[in-house]
Formats: sequence, structure tokens, C-alpha cells
Amino acid sequence: MMREKAENMVREEGENFVEGDGGGETEEAALERAFDEIEVPPWQKQITIRAMVTSLILSAVFNVIVCKLNLSTGVIPSLNVAAGLLGFAAVKAWTVMIEKCGLLKQPFTRQENTVIQTCVVASSGIAFSSGTASYLLAMSPLTASQADSGNTPINVKALSLGWITGFLFLVSFVGLFSIVPLRRLMILKYKLTYPSGTATAYLINSFHTPKGAKLAKKQVWVLFKSFVGSFTWAFFQWFFTAADNCGFSSFPTFGLKAFSQRFYFDFSSTYVGVGMICPYMVNVSLLIGAIVSWGLMWPAIESKKGIWFRADLPGNSLHGIQGYRVFLAIATILGDGLFQVVYMVVLTLKSFTQQVLHKNDNINLDEGAVVEDYDEKKRTAYFLKDQIPNTTAIVGYIVLALISTFVLPQIFHQLKWYQILVAYIIAPVLAFCNAYGCGLSDWSLASNYGKIAILVISSWVGLEHGGVLAGLASCGVMMSIVSTASDLMQDFKTGYLTLSSPRSMFVSQVLGTAMGCVLSPLVFWFFYKAYKVGDPNSAYPAPYALLYRGIALLGVEGFSALPHNCLMLAIVCFLVSVAINLLIVVLKRYETKYRIYRFIPSPMCMAIPFYLGGYFAIDMCIGSALLFAWQLKNKKQADELSPAVASGLICGDSLWGVPAAILALAGVSPPICMKFLSASANQRVDAMLGA
Amino acid sequence: MMREKAENMVREEGENFVEGDGGGETEEAALERAFDEIEVPPWQKQITIRAMVTSLILSAVFNVIVCKLNLSTGVIPSLNVAAGLLGFAAVKAWTVMIEKCGLLKQPFTRQENTVIQTCVVASSGIAFSSGTASYLLAMSPLTASQADSGNTPINVKALSLGWITGFLFLVSFVGLFSIVPLRRLMILKYKLTYPSGTATAYLINSFHTPKGAKLAKKQVWVLFKSFVGSFTWAFFQWFFTAADNCGFSSFPTFGLKAFSQRFYFDFSSTYVGVGMICPYMVNVSLLIGAIVSWGLMWPAIESKKGIWFRADLPGNSLHGIQGYRVFLAIATILGDGLFQVVYMVVLTLKSFTQQVLHKNDNINLDEGAVVEDYDEKKRTAYFLKDQIPNTTAIVGYIVLALISTFVLPQIFHQLKWYQILVAYIIAPVLAFCNAYGCGLSDWSLASNYGKIAILVISSWVGLEHGGVLAGLASCGVMMSIVSTASDLMQDFKTGYLTLSSPRSMFVSQVLGTAMGCVLSPLVFWFFYKAYKVGDPNSAYPAPYALLYRGIALLGVEGFSALPHNCLMLAIVCFLVSVAINLLIVVLKRYETKYRIYRFIPSPMCMAIPFYLGGYFAIDMCIGSALLFAWQLKNKKQADELSPAVASGLICGDSLWGVPAAILALAGVSPPICMKFLSASANQRVDAMLGA
Repeated sequence: MMREKAENMVREEGENFVEGDGGGETEEAALERAFDEIEVPPWQKQITIRAMVTSLILSAVFNVIVCKLNLSTGVIPSLNVAAGLLGFAAVKAWTVMIEKCGLLKQPFTRQENTVIQTCVVASSGIAFSSGTASYLLAMSPLTASQADSGNTPINVKALSLGWITGFLFLVSFVGLFSIVPLRRLMILKYKLTYPSGTATAYLINSFHTPKGAKLAKKQVWVLFKSFVGSFTWAFFQWFFTAADNCGFSSFPTFGLKAFSQRFYFDFSSTYVGVGMICPYMVNVSLLIGAIVSWGLMWPAIESKKGIWFRADLPGNSLHGIQGYRVFLAIATILGDGLFQVVYMVVLTLKSFTQQVLHKNDNINLDEGAVVEDYDEKKRTAYFLKDQIPNTTAIVGYIVLALISTFVLPQIFHQLKWYQILVAYIIAPVLAFCNAYGCGLSDWSLASNYGKIAILVISSWVGLEHGGVLAGLASCGVMMSIVSTASDLMQDFKTGYLTLSSPRSMFVSQVLGTAMGCVLSPLVFWFFYKAYKVGDPNSAYPAPYALLYRGIALLGVEGFSALPHNCLMLAIVCFLVSVAINLLIVVLKRYETKYRIYRFIPSPMCMAIPFYLGGYFAIDMCIGSALLFAWQLKNKKQADELSPAVASGLICGDSLWGVPAAILALAGVSPPICMKFLSASANQRVDAMLGA
Repeated sequence: MMREKAENMVREEGENFVEGDGGGETEEAALERAFDEIEVPPWQKQITIRAMVTSLILSAVFNVIVCKLNLSTGVIPSLNVAAGLLGFAAVKAWTVMIEKCGLLKQPFTRQENTVIQTCVVASSGIAFSSGTASYLLAMSPLTASQADSGNTPINVKALSLGWITGFLFLVSFVGLFSIVPLRRLMILKYKLTYPSGTATAYLINSFHTPKGAKLAKKQVWVLFKSFVGSFTWAFFQWFFTAADNCGFSSFPTFGLKAFSQRFYFDFSSTYVGVGMICPYMVNVSLLIGAIVSWGLMWPAIESKKGIWFRADLPGNSLHGIQGYRVFLAIATILGDGLFQVVYMVVLTLKSFTQQVLHKNDNINLDEGAVVEDYDEKKRTAYFLKDQIPNTTAIVGYIVLALISTFVLPQIFHQLKWYQILVAYIIAPVLAFCNAYGCGLSDWSLASNYGKIAILVISSWVGLEHGGVLAGLASCGVMMSIVSTASDLMQDFKTGYLTLSSPRSMFVSQVLGTAMGCVLSPLVFWFFYKAYKVGDPNSAYPAPYALLYRGIALLGVEGFSALPHNCLMLAIVCFLVSVAINLLIVVLKRYETKYRIYRFIPSPMCMAIPFYLGGYFAIDMCIGSALLFAWQLKNKKQADELSPAVASGLICGDSLWGVPAAILALAGVSPPICMKFLSASANQRVDAMLGA
């Protein structure tokens, strides 16, 4: 009886997320039919030497790009697609050449392609999470000298290649193990979409689709068209972004007032595509969150300016309005995430008890209940084929965490072992929250969790005991885990959709992480020695370094430094988030007629725009609206082709990030600024330009 | 033998223009089949009292709008669509009401709708061609006092309601008769598109399509969608046009350098729609003309700045680069137009000789040779049903011209009867040129012909004999004829496509003109007495008045005042234009294999962007490209639906002109300026706004 109920709930939860999901093809539309005659190599053969060589070369290139961007503007494009595409191009060229010589032993498969993509993303992910432009650089004497306070020997650490590399090796692998056991829950049961991962998988599938498959051909063609369209559009947009606040990404679509509250359509084809992949309710939740926060809460709080917080603070100070945004968002996300964790534990224990009582050995809660169509069946089978035992993951996590716990204080004597231990105890929950949220909405909020770590540890240690440095180091610990976890789950999704083994994904991620731990400090060291990195007037001001140090300085002042009522409001948000989840669970169980629970927004999704603003929620809702109109017009065609269109939109826009980065590095800036001025500002500008 | 050749040529010329023509449906796609059961009333019954009352009310409203816009900014929207739509709404509401009372005697037909539209357009056309904001106001003492010279009693005339009304009655009707005999040539033989006329006809047809007609329903639905889309887009654009050079219409799509040479896509759905209706070769010709003039000729001439013309002139002075633009364009258009006229006369004489020799009484050169499909057959039959005898037209023209010739000098004693006579002798050719060019490309260049008249007559009369005033008066004579002619032909096209009788069109135009001649001066007089019209610092600066007076002042200085080599270059353009036409004729006759002549651009079309720039040619080419892609994808669907889509695009954008005008009159200006700055200008602006 209990089991049935549990299964019933699982099915419904599946349904809740299955709409708009990339895998939802109808029987005749099965993409995998086209691949039926192509053998999937065993996982060890998915990781080939040529794949690793290609990965290493691409990793090096991407590390240079990411590092340089990190140090100059801090804006980094998503590289999943570029990694998949360039990996394909490189190995394909190589195999075609070898094949012509008659020497090809193993054909190039999409699994191998996915392995390259995973490895490169892991490696260049380190370039971001290594904090060479944020928390690590924030420790340097140059950055310390720029801050108002805290420039004491105990709060400063001179950078050196040696300890940075060691530090990265210590913290970067832990995250991989933290999330592995949850892959079936997230991919099979929740059917989380991971829009970027899905899009990359579609791209890779399309590269490898055998000739002759009709529907696949149509999908590839549609993907190609939307890819080219999206790339061209991004290229066109580039010309009009001569400076900040220029171009289509600053388009006050709903007026300047709405724009100042971050409500606008920013013409990003990426998020329109993401919106097409995400379920309707996710997009609606995001929009509701944006309206509640930027439409009601922040204006209300801002009206207390000068009372709750000082009026003369810069906009990005955590002492001011930005503090409310960040902490309220995190609290809501934590509320949702913790609820999910607790709820799963309760359910698992309950069904485990049932199992013991009834000797029923077939209770696999993790697997989705309704495996309907051909694609899903085949993908699930391959996804479950090579297991990574949970014990391996748990033991691995504990061992690595313990090593890290006792070696890290050797590098940062300001940080105590028990503090690190606490971080590693809390981290898996945060990793889950981030991977879950990322699966829903494509946003990884890793750096925010890092900032929270800074605050907590800095305030714990205190200024005189090196709290600033301890906080920044703990940021590295936390960010690495949280960011790696969501990357890995994203890659599992790509692997799931390309029939790649989770084991080869995992190994590839480990190898990529190792590459990153070597490459990233090396590349950084080159820049650090060659240029005056961190000097605001140099070409590499690394704007985030000072920001992170500022957060640590806020932390050492303790909770009292938070703006008024911020803590109280954060607790309210946390409780509301839990309450909404409880409501959903209760409704799910007792209100089965109208299934109202389907229309209750997700607190996790609602919280993301708290911090970022509503613009991407609007993009995504436009994606939803397009999909809705398409389904209304031709349901079958929409279901068959919309994932391809969405993937094309995401991939094209993302790929433009690479040439754009190269142009930025080469010092080529766009020629035109498309600016939006109020009528009165425009008069002043015209008067000035005319004079 | 000769006749066959002539017919053959006619067919080919027909083909030359038939591609993309609105009437080109396939047999099964015939729109008129849907109307088969609806009786077309005789022409007298098309002009009903309710139609005339509606027309009068709309005329009054539109006259106020046009006059006010004319006096404030000088930018006037095209009102064809609004006239058709509001006419429909008014009479429909009326008839539905009456029908409910059981009193409806005559159903509301599309012919009646077309009559209203024609009448209102004719009447509000007078508000434009009456020159109350241009040549008439230019005669006033206030405007004269603003110019550098020419403020002598003989060159100034105080305005009064009496003589203005008389003047309009004298000059406004002549144009109607000048072009009537050519309607069959232009509509049936050349199959000129008249995009606005065609779009209006599609709109009117769609209002009156009987329920149940499947294709028609589809067309109406498509038209509705593109109409709403285009209207919404125009509405959206409005918000970003807080000032001149703001908004999408100033979008430097191809960069700032290209923009400065007027090469950009201005996001006008009107011209994209026009491009879809116009044949490919027209759009290509426009683009070639834009490239030749703005890409090569004008930069070359501008490099002579300071040598050929003074360097310190404002951009819009006819003494400078603008002089070359206007005169070279006019010369090319005249070359093409005169060639067509002479060529038609030669052909007519030739075939007339043949006819006399062979007693063949069936040579109707004017009619298209290949009347293929159902729609075309039916439309042609109705178009030819009610004739307007050529003798009536010719006699009417001569009588009115003579009256005008001898009465006008009573109003303007500076103008001599023989000068007016010369104007009336030349005018029909210019009217033909304008109606022909307008049919090809939707641009009426009436005001340019008016400017030419100012120059010629002013220089003929001379400053001391009142040349300024004489020139301005002759501008009125010329503009009225030329502008009325193209309006009438546009309406004939609408009439042709709605099975309205040419006779009812003509009568409606006459009645509308009469309304305009009464309403326009009255409305102007109201403004003139109530406000300080013509004062640059008032709300009604009427910017064109001074411009026109400036042209007259240029005229009295004679041809020597033209910039260097302008006359010579104009003659070259004229000759090249004739030569291209000759080449086309020769190729048509002797090169029948590849029919290369189809790929020779039309000089008339090439000349239009000389003066205006290439932006609308780019819009139109995008329209062509869309149509081409659509035809490639689904030829049948594109042929069936593209005229409806194009009409919707044109109508939606045009209709927004009415609320936009009302907003402008109410003093509501858009809140945002979307501005395009070079990177360096942007830096200065940011510095200023930051400070």
C-alpha cells in the first residue's frame, strides 16, 4: 500500500517535470531509432587517447581564454557547446584523415565526443572556480592595499605557483564525489532538464546522426538553421555593444522604469532556448519570483533607505540593498533544497522500513516510474548499465574531505581543521541545492555559496586571527564543491542523452579536473608575472578580487554588519520556502482531483531572480510562449522539433562567445553603442554632441 | 506581322511586371470566386449618400490631422489604409444598425467602401498638395521676413481665405483629367503594382469576403495576423523615438559609415511589405540606384566640396550636394518618363497606321495580352465595363487648363498666362512620370516636380518682376496635377482589385477633391488665425515654408546659381536613362534567347534613391528576399498568401500613423530615445551623464 502511494507520487512528480522535456518524443519520433545500428562502445573504450589529447589541447586554449577574460572583465561565456563542437571538429578531422590512410581502428562515436566535452568543461570550469581572479587574487598584497581595512600581515598571503596548485588539487576533486549518488534521482526521477546539457547533447547527437534517418535529418536541419540564426544574431548584436549598458542586452523593452528594476527582454537567444526546454511552471515561477522581489520587495526595502541601511552606499555593497537580495535568495534556495533533502531521506527511510517488513527487494525509488517511450527506455538502460557504487562515492568523499581538512591548515594556518570539517559536512547539501536549481533553470549560483562561506568563516575567525584570509580560503573550498557538482550533473544529463556511460563521464570529469588543476595556475601565473594583475588602471584590473575581499571584510564585522532586518527577512524567506514545499506535498497527497499542486510555483526557481533580476525570466517565458504557440499550431511537429530549435538557439549564441572573447582579447571593441536615454537625458546629450 | 510583334512585346512587358504582382493567383486560388454570388452594383449605386456623408466626416478629421502635422513637423503618414478601415467601420456600424431595424435597402459593398476610401484620400491629399505649410505659406510676410533676401512687396502676398480657396479650385481638378486616358495602359498593360493601392484593396476585400470561402478565410486570417503584428511593431517602435535620429528608423544596421550614406535597414514593415508586392527587378533596381548614387556618385562629388560648391553650406541647400541629388534624380526620371511617352506615341501611331492599312478594327493596344486567370479576367472585365471616353478627358483637361490659365493671373499678377500655359503643356508628361514611378515603387515625388517648377518659373520671371511669388504659385499648379494624378491611378488600382467601376472612382475623386478644396483652406485658416504659424519658435513652425521660399530665391538667381557641373551631370543622367531604355527595347526585339533585358535595371527606379537614400530600397529588398525564401519553400502557399501578408504589413504600420499623429497633436512624446553613438562619442556621453 505504502509503496503504491510512493510510486504514484513519483509518477506525478515525473509528470510535473516532463512537459517540455527534451526526452519527451513520441514513439515514432524516437531519435535513438536512428542510432539503433550503431554500437555503443563499453565505457573504457569511450575514453580514448585521441580524446584525451584533444581535450588537453582544448583545455589549454580555453584556460587561456577564461583566465584572460576573468582578469579583464569577469564575464565568461558558457563553453559547453564550444567544447562539444571543437572536440567534434578535431577528432573528426583526425579520424577522417586516418581513415583515408586505412588506419582507423575505432570509429568516432558520440560517446567519445561527450567525453571530450565533459573533460574540457571540467578543466575550464577549474579556471573559473579556482578563483584566480576572485578569492585567490583577493589574498594578494596588491588587492589588500586597495581595501579600506584589513591590510595586516595575517590577512595577506603572497601568491605562489606551488601552493595554489596544491590547494586546487586538495579542493577540486571532493565535489565530484559529493553528488554522484544523486544522479539517478536528478536525471531519471526528477527528469531535471539541464538546458545547456540537453542542448549540447542534441548538438552532439546531430553531429553523429547516421545518414538516412528521416526525422533525425529534419531535426539536424532545424538545429542547424536555428544555430546559424542564433549565431548570426549574436554576431549582429556585438556591433552595438561598444561599452557597458549598450546594445540589445540593455534594451528597456518595457520602459526605463521597468529596466531599472531589471524587467526587460534582453534579446538573448540562449535564454529563449532555455525557456523552450524548461517546463512551463519553471519559467512561470521565475517570473513570479522576479515580480515579487523586484516589483514589490526591493522597492519596499529601498523606501527604507537611510533607515534600514545607509543611503550613501554603492549599489553593489552587501551592507545595502544588495545584501537583502543575496541573503534572501540564498535563504529561499536553502529552504527549498533542505526540504528536498529531508523529504527524500524521510521517504527513503519509510520505504526502506516497508521493504524490510515485506521482504520486497524490488524497491528502487530512484528510478522513474513511467518509462514510456523508446528513447527514454534505451537511455535509461544505458544510464543504469555502468554503476558507480554509492559506497565508492561516499568513501571517496570522506577520504578526500579528511585529507583536505588536515592538509589545508598547512597552507592557510588561519583556517582551523574543524572549520574545514564543518564546511565539508554542510557542502553536500549546498551542492545538491545548486545542482537541483541548475537542473531546473540552467543557473549555477556557485559563487553565491562561496560568498556565504566567506561571510560565515570570516566572522567565525575574526579580523585579528586572519578572518579575511580564512574566509577567502573557505570560499575556494565551497565554490569548488558546489560548482563541480552542478557541472558534473549537467554532464550526466548530456551523457544520458548520448548513451554515454556515467562511469566514463565521471572518469573524464576526474581527468579534466586534474588537467585544470595543473593548467589553470600555470596560465594564471603567466599573466600574474607578465602584467600588473589587479591594478585598477592596468589592462587586467580583475574587478572581482576587490569585491571578494570586501565581502570578507564585511564578514569579519559579523552578523551585526548586515543591514537591518536582513537576517529576520532571510529567516522568513526560508520558512516560506519550506511551507510552500509542504503545501505541495500535502496537496499532492490529498487533492487529486484538480491537481492544484501543479500550479504552485517552485521556491527554488522563484529565488533565482531575487538576486539577478527578471530579465532572463522574461527571455525564458518568451521561449515558453513560442513553444506554446507552436504546440497549439502543430503539437506533433513542436514536440519533435522544439528541442532541436532550442538547442540551436542556445548553442549558436554560446558559440559566438568564443570569437567574441578572441576579439576582446585582441583589443577589438565594437564600433557602435546602442544607447537608451530618457527624453530629458537625450536633450542634454544632443546639446552636448551638437556643440 | 507588326501587330504580332507588338503583341509579343506587350506580353513580355507584362511578364516583366507580373512576377510578385498581387493579382497573380493560380486558378484554384482565385479570390474572386468567393465573391461570385455577390452582385456588383452599377457605378451610380456605388456612390451612395451614406458613403459621401462618411467621407465628408472622415475628410474633415483627416484634414485637421494632416494640416496640424504639416504645420508642426511636416511628416505625414499615408492615409489610404486608415481611410479604408474607418470607412468600413463607420458604414458597417451604420448598416448593421439599420439592418436590425429592418430598414436596410442596399447592402454595404466593397465598391462602396472603395468609393469612401478614394474620396477621403482625394480630400486629404489636397491638404498636402494645397501647400498650406509649404508654397502658400512661403508667400506670407512672416516667412518672407525670415529669408535673407526677396522681402519686397512684389514677392510677398498676404494670405486670405478667399483667394486660397479659389486658387485650389482652379488647380486641383486639372490633374484628374490629365491621367485618366492612361489608366488602361498602367493598370492592365504595365500591370503596375501600386503597393499601397493593392494593400488597401486586399484589406477592403478581406473585410467583405463572404463567410465560407476557405482560401479567402485563410487570406483574411493571415492578413489580420500580419496587420496586428505590424501595428504592434510600429507601436513598440514609437516608445523609442523621443527625438530625431532616435529609434529603429535610425538603426545603423550596416554600421555608422553606411548609415551616414543612408544605407541601413530602418525596420519599417511598410516597405518590407511594399517590397513583397513589387517585382524583384524593381527592388533590385532601387538598390542598384542607391549604391551607384550614395555609394559612388555623391562621395565623388562631395570630394569636390569647396571647388564645385561652397563648403560652408548647410546639408539641405540646393546650392550644395543636395542640388546634385535632386536635379540628377529628376533628370533621370524625366529621361525614363519621356522615353516611355515618346515610345508609346510611336507605337500607337505605328499600329494605327497598320490598322488603317489592314482594316483590322481589333487593335486594342492598351489591354494586357495574356489574361490568364479567373481573378484577372473578372477584374479586367469590370475595369473595362464603364468607360470614361478619352475625348471627355482630353476636352476636360483643355477646358480646365484654359480656365486656369486665364484666371490664375488675376490672383497672381506676377504670373503670366503664357507661363501657365507652358506648365499645363508639360504637366501631363510629368504626371505620367510620377504615376508610373509611383506604380513601380510606391513613392510619389510630387513635391520634387513642384520644386522644379519653382526653379524654372522663378528664374524665368526674375526677382524684380516677382519671380519668387510666381515660382511658388507655379509650384502649386504643378504639384496639384502631379500628385492628383498618382493618387487617382493608385485608386484605379484599388478599384480594379475590388471590381469598382473606374467611373465611380473618378466621380468619387472629383467629389473628394471638391471637399478638400473647401475643407483644407478652412482648417488652415483656423490654425493661421489662432496661432503664430510659421514662427520658428512657435508650436507650428511649418519648416517647409522657408525651404520652399529658399528654392524660389535660388531660382531667381538663375541656372548659374546651380552648383558647378550640376546641369551637365543632369543632362548626362537624362541621356543615360534614355539609353538604358533604348537598350531594353533593342534587346527585347533582337535578343530573345536569354532575354537579358529582364536583368537591366529600370532607370526610373534607380533614380528614386538618388534623392532619398537607400534605406527603403533595403527594406524592399528584404521583402523580396522573404518572398523568395517563401516561394522556395512553398511556391503555392507563397503565391496565395504573400499579397495578404504584404498588405497586412503595409496597413498595420500605416494605421499606427493615426494614433501616433493624435499622440503628437496631444503633445505626448515618447519616453525613450534609442540612440546610436560611435564608441568615442559614447565615451563623451558617458562622461557627461556620469558627471
